[in-house]
Amino acid sequence: MKVIFCYNNFMDSFFNPKSIVIIGVSHEKNKVGHLVAKNLISQNYSGKMYFVNHKFDGKILGQTVYKSLDEVIKKEKTIDLVVLAVPSTVAVLYLDELNKYKIKNAVIFAAGFRETNINGAKLEDELKIKAHKYGINILGPNCIGFVNTKLGVNATFFKNIVPSGNIGFISQSGALGSALVDYFLSHNHLGFSYFISLGNKSVIDESSCLEYLIEDKNTTAIFMYLEDVKNGEKFKRTLKKAIFKKPVIILKSGRTLEGAKAATSHTGGMASDDRIFNSLMEETGAIRADDYQEFLTLIKIFSYRRLPINDSILVLSNAGGAGVLLTDKLIKNELKMAMISKELAIKLNESFEESKKITIHNPIDLLGDASAFDYNKAFTVVKKEKNIGAVIVLLTPQANTQIYETAKVLVEMQKQYREPIYPVFMGKKSMFGIGKLFEKERIVGFANFDYLVSSIKKIVDYREYIKKGEVSELVAKLVDRMTSQPMSNSVILYSQKYDLFSSLQLIKSLNIPVAKTLLLQSEKEINTIVKEISFPVVAKISSEKITHKTEVRGVVVDIKNKQELIDVYKKLSKISKEVVVQEMVSGHELLIGAKRDPSYGVILALGLGGIYTELLQEVSFKIYPLSRFEFSLMLKKTKVGKLLNNFRGKGKINPDPIYKILCSLGQFVTNNPQINEIEINPLMVSTKNIIAVDCRIIK
Amino acid sequence: MKVIFCYNNFMDSFFNPKSIVIIGVSHEKNKVGHLVAKNLISQNYSGKMYFVNHKFDGKILGQTVYKSLDEVIKKEKTIDLVVLAVPSTVAVLYLDELNKYKIKNAVIFAAGFRETNINGAKLEDELKIKAHKYGINILGPNCIGFVNTKLGVNATFFKNIVPSGNIGFISQSGALGSALVDYFLSHNHLGFSYFISLGNKSVIDESSCLEYLIEDKNTTAIFMYLEDVKNGEKFKRTLKKAIFKKPVIILKSGRTLEGAKAATSHTGGMASDDRIFNSLMEETGAIRADDYQEFLTLIKIFSYRRLPINDSILVLSNAGGAGVLLTDKLIKNELKMAMISKELAIKLNESFEESKKITIHNPIDLLGDASAFDYNKAFTVVKKEKNIGAVIVLLTPQANTQIYETAKVLVEMQKQYREPIYPVFMGKKSMFGIGKLFEKERIVGFANFDYLVSSIKKIVDYREYIKKGEVSELVAKLVDRMTSQPMSNSVILYSQKYDLFSSLQLIKSLNIPVAKTLLLQSEKEINTIVKEISFPVVAKISSEKITHKTEVRGVVVDIKNKQELIDVYKKLSKISKEVVVQEMVSGHELLIGAKRDPSYGVILALGLGGIYTELLQEVSFKIYPLSRFEFSLMLKKTKVGKLLNNFRGKGKINPDPIYKILCSLGQFVTNNPQINEIEINPLMVSTKNIIAVDCRIIK
Repeated sequence: MKVIFCYNNFMDSFFNPKSIVIIGVSHEKNKVGHLVAKNLISQNYSGKMYFVNHKFDGKILGQTVYKSLDEVIKKEKTIDLVVLAVPSTVAVLYLDELNKYKIKNAVIFAAGFRETNINGAKLEDELKIKAHKYGINILGPNCIGFVNTKLGVNATFFKNIVPSGNIGFISQSGALGSALVDYFLSHNHLGFSYFISLGNKSVIDESSCLEYLIEDKNTTAIFMYLEDVKNGEKFKRTLKKAIFKKPVIILKSGRTLEGAKAATSHTGGMASDDRIFNSLMEETGAIRADDYQEFLTLIKIFSYRRLPINDSILVLSNAGGAGVLLTDKLIKNELKMAMISKELAIKLNESFEESKKITIHNPIDLLGDASAFDYNKAFTVVKKEKNIGAVIVLLTPQANTQIYETAKVLVEMQKQYREPIYPVFMGKKSMFGIGKLFEKERIVGFANFDYLVSSIKKIVDYREYIKKGEVSELVAKLVDRMTSQPMSNSVILYSQKYDLFSSLQLIKSLNIPVAKTLLLQSEKEINTIVKEISFPVVAKISSEKITHKTEVRGVVVDIKNKQELIDVYKKLSKISKEVVVQEMVSGHELLIGAKRDPSYGVILALGLGGIYTELLQEVSFKIYPLSRFEFSLMLKKTKVGKLLNNFRGKGKINPDPIYKILCSLGQFVTNNPQINEIEINPLMVSTKNIIAVDCRIIK
Repeated sequence: MKVIFCYNNFMDSFFNPKSIVIIGVSHEKNKVGHLVAKNLISQNYSGKMYFVNHKFDGKILGQTVYKSLDEVIKKEKTIDLVVLAVPSTVAVLYLDELNKYKIKNAVIFAAGFRETNINGAKLEDELKIKAHKYGINILGPNCIGFVNTKLGVNATFFKNIVPSGNIGFISQSGALGSALVDYFLSHNHLGFSYFISLGNKSVIDESSCLEYLIEDKNTTAIFMYLEDVKNGEKFKRTLKKAIFKKPVIILKSGRTLEGAKAATSHTGGMASDDRIFNSLMEETGAIRADDYQEFLTLIKIFSYRRLPINDSILVLSNAGGAGVLLTDKLIKNELKMAMISKELAIKLNESFEESKKITIHNPIDLLGDASAFDYNKAFTVVKKEKNIGAVIVLLTPQANTQIYETAKVLVEMQKQYREPIYPVFMGKKSMFGIGKLFEKERIVGFANFDYLVSSIKKIVDYREYIKKGEVSELVAKLVDRMTSQPMSNSVILYSQKYDLFSSLQLIKSLNIPVAKTLLLQSEKEINTIVKEISFPVVAKISSEKITHKTEVRGVVVDIKNKQELIDVYKKLSKISKEVVVQEMVSGHELLIGAKRDPSYGVILALGLGGIYTELLQEVSFKIYPLSRFEFSLMLKKTKVGKLLNNFRGKGKINPDPIYKILCSLGQFVTNNPQINEIEINPLMVSTKNIIAVDCRIIK
């Protein structure tokens, strides 16, 4: 079943409908068909709405109920959106009627499709075919609908109306959405511009919704909950577009299920989809929330617009222990403890010495008896300090701690302060009402700092990415142009046989440097070979079947003269009649490869190579095409970066040739649909040379 | 300044005092001297208490105030405990008077000691000397005191009285303690048996308090907050004793500060104290909480005594998405999704088919419209299932969700169920009062599962440890005996010179297998050498000064004949006049070593060796002596375990000889105080041999 995309020309009428018809409206309070009608009314929908139920007389919720879509059309020519609150099979039948009246947008709540069993899957295919034939946008099936708070469209069967705000939320789970709405309702200044539940994503998928929210003026940050990605390439493109207009924060589940997939080769084996998704986040600058709790924390920070300015954090505290714990957390999350300037230190001492000796380092410990006045005094000095990204204020309820007064001080301070102040008031009983006090002022307060720190880190990285990104985007484009010209001879050269020798010949034709390699098919050929190659040499079997040559003793290194070569050949030819003789190359061993992925297209791999590849699992994966910036992330992610950077005084190795080779491999797999994977392991790298000595190709 | 330990014979009178004197009692409400008096009264101290203030007339809090300790002694011969609520210098002076009256226990609140500056440090040394001379137990200084809820001793200046319960808490930070007390006060069934604030640990340290709580009948679980460990060996011993009597959960800060320490060699460089502390946790079975929030979660679980039985978890849910997120979390934390037996599947289907199709796998998804009755029905079946370690029940507030009723169902179920039920009710607004409802019944409920899962994992591991541990403890003892006989000749053989050759000779004398190695000091010696060793050979420089031989090209491998050896020697002798010739050994390269640590004694190191040691940082550290069980943890922690276990079909390698070598190295460093570190890298391991080819010794 081929993937169908939504019909962008109708997306606006879908998400901003001027007229909505609910089919299957019901008078039974618990029925979906009643809840959606109720929600549409209570959310104060500003457009026209029509209720349909062919076997019901009278009114529901004070509204006329029509017998059929037919009757509605007599009153209203153009219907922007139909909400189908009917069973699965009925919903599919209704699509014909929608087409009859040229209705282009539908929400389908019903479950009972792909998620249930084979028959459900058949029904969903049927639905897709119709949608495709008629060109109808469908949200769902098996979804909870969507909300547009500005227009008051609440086409869901939530229990509550949805608070309005600046968060655009796209969710593959309705249930999680309901938990989120419930959370929002109990906090000030948290609200949605759009809430979109994706369901089975038969037609409208995460990418199309994302694309739509990029342009929506009421959405300042986009949050997503995803279980899978329908089309990786499309999603990557859309994310790249989104990220420079507004932040995208994704909570992705289904991390571990992929792990079960059996590994067919090094690259394949280690490339779990989740690692690809992670690299997708890295290269697009999207933020991945690791836990639900972190997701909530990020929502709060983005909703209140209290983003850290940079990675250098100042801590004010009345609790030494908590200060140390927080410091650990900040450093472990690769954030910086803000340096305290001499001037600041002096000013702090001046303002405190008459009263008490406070320790002037970061965290600034105001000691257990710190009063609100002390916090105020400290902050009045601190706020003049430059280059601080955010201030975390720790407070524990000790004998003389003025909790409420200190909170008030912080609220005042935040008004005079550009950088965010994050109060962390630890404890519970004495903290009653404090959270609300902060919320009212859009201050992001917490009872502990555990998820605050990781959230700060992720936002700082996102801001860094935007800065760097603008540049790298240009590079990326250049690279794309550079690599997107199909390699002149990559297809012609393509052979049917993928033994070592022909594989090496092939990559040579892709302008990848390859160690001098000669084919040795009989002992007498040795006489000619020794003339063409200089000792010491390596001899390897060149069989297509054997993956791990060393395991079968199919590799002999450091052969110093003709006699040794003869002896070695005798042994090897017993394992495989085809043997290659290769010049000996020294250097670090890297793994470098490209492979085809069903959802993400061509994936590139770079990592530590040699016989320990599987053991070390030091491999990073990225989606092709690869920008220079993305490549630099691969070096950082694995230990390859360290290895190239004057490791053990072996000198700096320029990574650019490796980057070129990666791109060539990616381009090669892209150009050759019959190739599933190509892997060079090892690629020998040193200050002298970067050169392939072994290669595997998998059809 | 040598470490002083506390005087155990007085610990009981310290923590269960029949008579307490507070010196420096005050009428000023905010003063420490007032708060402690107030707390002692409000906590209903059952013993005799006396207040002293030499310049105050009349009563304080209805109690007579004495002019001096003298006056008190006239009324009360034996004083068990004196609380010094006086400035630092005064406190130190008072010790003489305590000694005069044979008073053996004191609490010192005052700050202004080691934590401030050099003068403070001097004052603390003075305090230690007196404590030592007089044999006085001191808690603090710079602490908040301690609480014994059973006797009603509240010798702290907390703002509240401390709730009584089964948790023994030892804290190196008073402030964090106050946050914890505040948290406890707002929850049902959370309370302390003892609360002990350590302060500067001049005399009484974490180990002595731990030792005391092991025997305390009212303490069922011991929680600690630590910033450092005063004496690692003592702490390890005490933990080992504790763990088989009650769980010990530690929140340890100061993790990252150690990272700054410069590395003198591979082992030293990579052994940050925090890694040693982690290994201490592993080998003693103590639980390390990674975050404050996790610490609180563990406190709740242990207080309510709802421990998971094993690692196989069943999930009941009305929210697919949340179920997937939770599954990820469980698997990532190496917990198991409980298998659903055929019988269970059938029973579930039977009980539901009339109403709806629920998906029978784990998580069991009761779908969005699940009623309290559905939860009940599902659980009635589930509870008969065997081998389930715990049940997590997810609930999100959807249109028809019966939140309160479902909570009631779970409460009933827990009454009939041995395994713990952990309700995770996501959302907030609709969840009001639900938390309390669970707490009243000692049910551990949450609003999200993020810290629940990691806590379950840690408790399961702890229980596993106890099971395995009992056995391994015996082994450990045997090993200790085996290794604790000083190696006959380890000291005699000890030389002044630690070039490669003599280092290898030395470890050979420790019965560690060493590759055949000959010293080559002149070209003509080659003639004799070739008779004693067979080609191919390796030649290395044997200089004491050069750490990384390969970096200076000081190693040449695979020398196949005499002529090659002569050529090589010519080159090498230019770098160092002493060269060794060694038989060539193949295999995996390991690093194995022992090193002296100021706080933890002798540390053992095991990891991946060779030139990439620093790059890979695959090294695990443990405190010597090492039990076989602890050794097995080292194999698991690093990739060494995988390497030995038939890696790439190279066959299983028996780790026992490696274990023996580790122990010998540990014993050697223990026996030779003049040696700081010994490291074998690489130790070549294969199915054929386990043999050292290189060794470094550092004085």
